[in-house]
Amino acid sequence: MNKAILFIIDGLGDLPTPKTALQAAKKKNFDWLAKNGVCGLMSTIDRGITPGSDVSHLQLFGYDPKEYYPGRGPLEALGVGINLQEGDVAFRANFATVDGKKIIDRRAGRISTDIGKALEKYVNMKIGPFVTAIFKSSVEHRGALVLRGGDVDDGITDTDPHGHGDYILECKPMNSIDQRGITTSEIVNEFTKRVFALLNNAEENKKLEAQKKLKANIILLRSAGQYRPIVSIKERFDISAACVAGGALYKGIAKYVGMDIVNVQGATGTAQTDLKAKGNAVVTALKNHDVVFLHVKACDSFGHDGNFNGKVKMLERIDKELLPILIKSKANIIITGDHSTPCIRKAHSGHEVPILIYGDERKDKVGKFDEVACMNGGLGHLRGKDVMPIILNLIRKEKMYGS
Amino acid sequence: MNKAILFIIDGLGDLPTPKTALQAAKKKNFDWLAKNGVCGLMSTIDRGITPGSDVSHLQLFGYDPKEYYPGRGPLEALGVGINLQEGDVAFRANFATVDGKKIIDRRAGRISTDIGKALEKYVNMKIGPFVTAIFKSSVEHRGALVLRGGDVDDGITDTDPHGHGDYILECKPMNSIDQRGITTSEIVNEFTKRVFALLNNAEENKKLEAQKKLKANIILLRSAGQYRPIVSIKERFDISAACVAGGALYKGIAKYVGMDIVNVQGATGTAQTDLKAKGNAVVTALKNHDVVFLHVKACDSFGHDGNFNGKVKMLERIDKELLPILIKSKANIIITGDHSTPCIRKAHSGHEVPILIYGDERKDKVGKFDEVACMNGGLGHLRGKDVMPIILNLIRKEKMYGS
Repeated sequence: MNKAILFIIDGLGDLPTPKTALQAAKKKNFDWLAKNGVCGLMSTIDRGITPGSDVSHLQLFGYDPKEYYPGRGPLEALGVGINLQEGDVAFRANFATVDGKKIIDRRAGRISTDIGKALEKYVNMKIGPFVTAIFKSSVEHRGALVLRGGDVDDGITDTDPHGHGDYILECKPMNSIDQRGITTSEIVNEFTKRVFALLNNAEENKKLEAQKKLKANIILLRSAGQYRPIVSIKERFDISAACVAGGALYKGIAKYVGMDIVNVQGATGTAQTDLKAKGNAVVTALKNHDVVFLHVKACDSFGHDGNFNGKVKMLERIDKELLPILIKSKANIIITGDHSTPCIRKAHSGHEVPILIYGDERKDKVGKFDEVACMNGGLGHLRGKDVMPIILNLIRKEKMYGS
Repeated sequence: MNKAILFIIDGLGDLPTPKTALQAAKKKNFDWLAKNGVCGLMSTIDRGITPGSDVSHLQLFGYDPKEYYPGRGPLEALGVGINLQEGDVAFRANFATVDGKKIIDRRAGRISTDIGKALEKYVNMKIGPFVTAIFKSSVEHRGALVLRGGDVDDGITDTDPHGHGDYILECKPMNSIDQRGITTSEIVNEFTKRVFALLNNAEENKKLEAQKKLKANIILLRSAGQYRPIVSIKERFDISAACVAGGALYKGIAKYVGMDIVNVQGATGTAQTDLKAKGNAVVTALKNHDVVFLHVKACDSFGHDGNFNGKVKMLERIDKELLPILIKSKANIIITGDHSTPCIRKAHSGHEVPILIYGDERKDKVGKFDEVACMNGGLGHLRGKDVMPIILNLIRKEKMYGS
């Protein structure tokens, strides 16, 4: 079948302690695919380089982040479902709790997703005659803010200290003589002041206060980025592509490159995600798409938490619940990670990730899918930029170079 | 430990006759590291390319020589301990023996290091109102000359024929209408004339003549390069680094990129170098540096001499005297060469060099450290540019790309 599933297991790669999570997991379907496919190792960006999930996914989709990375803000905003317009400046936003300028909790005690949704109405506002603030909450304290109109610019600093102190920061222009940056920073500061007044007195927060809970009385902003539409994956590679993911960021990146977003009931971006539902959604999406991007987040989260057993169990769930559905689809299957998140580091790292291709390829002698077995794989050592051309070749959408 | 030793064995790679020097050497510590680490092959610049030691070290330190190579002159001058200033034009310099314009001996009979030192005073001089010639001798007939002031330029030719004839050459501008090159070449020719007059009549040379020895009565200049300070390794990668080396060139390259130079008693850059003293200096330097660059020269020299047994014995000395000290340090260890110097070629070559990483990495199945065993290593085929990102990842100084 001239179709492909690009299955990205977030934070897949690990370091041995003494086994890696992949080596420790019982995973007969991964190993069956390795045995019947071809394996290798991959650096998403380049050898030794540690990428964030945003740039690494862009690169795996065939978009060099040096050229196409718009910053985290626009990708988050697209992910929560805001339809961005050219020139919009988007931020990653957090509900938080402040007392004066002091931040009591950067996550407002991880308010429920429902309360976040209920508070949205206070955060959407007009600022001055030209600018609209558009806010959408996502999961718990998380959300995205977009400033639209009035010639806003992304050359501004964060109000979220994000690990650099306990006080809400004043937004400033990155360049002190840039008039658009100056104006935008003033708009952000005005937004922050007004949003505090509105949230601090909101009915929902009074209820939280009565329950002795932290109020979600401020919005912290970071990672401003200006949105410009880019050439779509359809125009660029002549393929139709769909995205099956739980996390907002991954949907955002997919939408940014022009994939269709398949919303799946039960796909949460957490360890409780409904893998069978996601697998079935992939199979359905394959009917009218050339490539389906499938994302599972939890292995990365377990890596960040240093939870080795959690990572192993998640891989075992993927093996048992998800892979049989993918294998039955008869599509070409590419399985890899966007980066390593070794449990002993509790952070992304620059170590290569294993990659496996099952389908219209030669087979190598690798019979297990893990970091060490893949060292001697037939694919050798790939870069993330190699993946999209390889997929196009698998699904017969390759364009001949020369004649 | 979040520290690393970058151990460069100059000219490490070899060709089989029928074994390579690494294959012939008894080297249980190299092999222990290979067994407990991950191996591969590396081209310092690119596949098949034969680099000089200067550009290959720059590349291994994370500085693309296409952008940062200042020519050999400034690196030699820094290596002999001249504090260069922006705009200085530096040369590799040789004491030699001339009769008129004819060169009798390009190395002045390899005068002793002491005589070289004693002759320094004749070579330091003012030329015209603006230019100062600063000279420092190093080992035997070797030294470096710096021209400072007067808007000097490096667009000039050598006075040292260096294998192209027996006559001292007139210095010329590379571009005949370049006024700075014209002026600088006139300064060099004036320097050469005056230095001959001073040296030929020097007390020290009269003594040599009385002993029927060759006089060191001229200075031959080559490899002019203009010095510009570059971004330091500290600013560029946020690491502190130290250099443990015997040879002046290697200290010069290390100084050029902003490493601290550790001077080690008994480190000579020859086969007699005190390897234990160097190993101990590395361990000490690790206390207050993130990365210590360790250089051993003699394997390259034996390669140039075609002395296979000498190269084997030197590797065995490294294995016995140096590696146990490095292993005990608990730092990450990277061992590689700057290029191959196959004994049967008596010259640098473009064959890959083996590379070994022991530390915060996965292990592969390679159990021996040599050119052939490393072909199947888990690192695959690296480029020199990959080495610094890999080191930063090992020592947790990686910067995340994206977010």
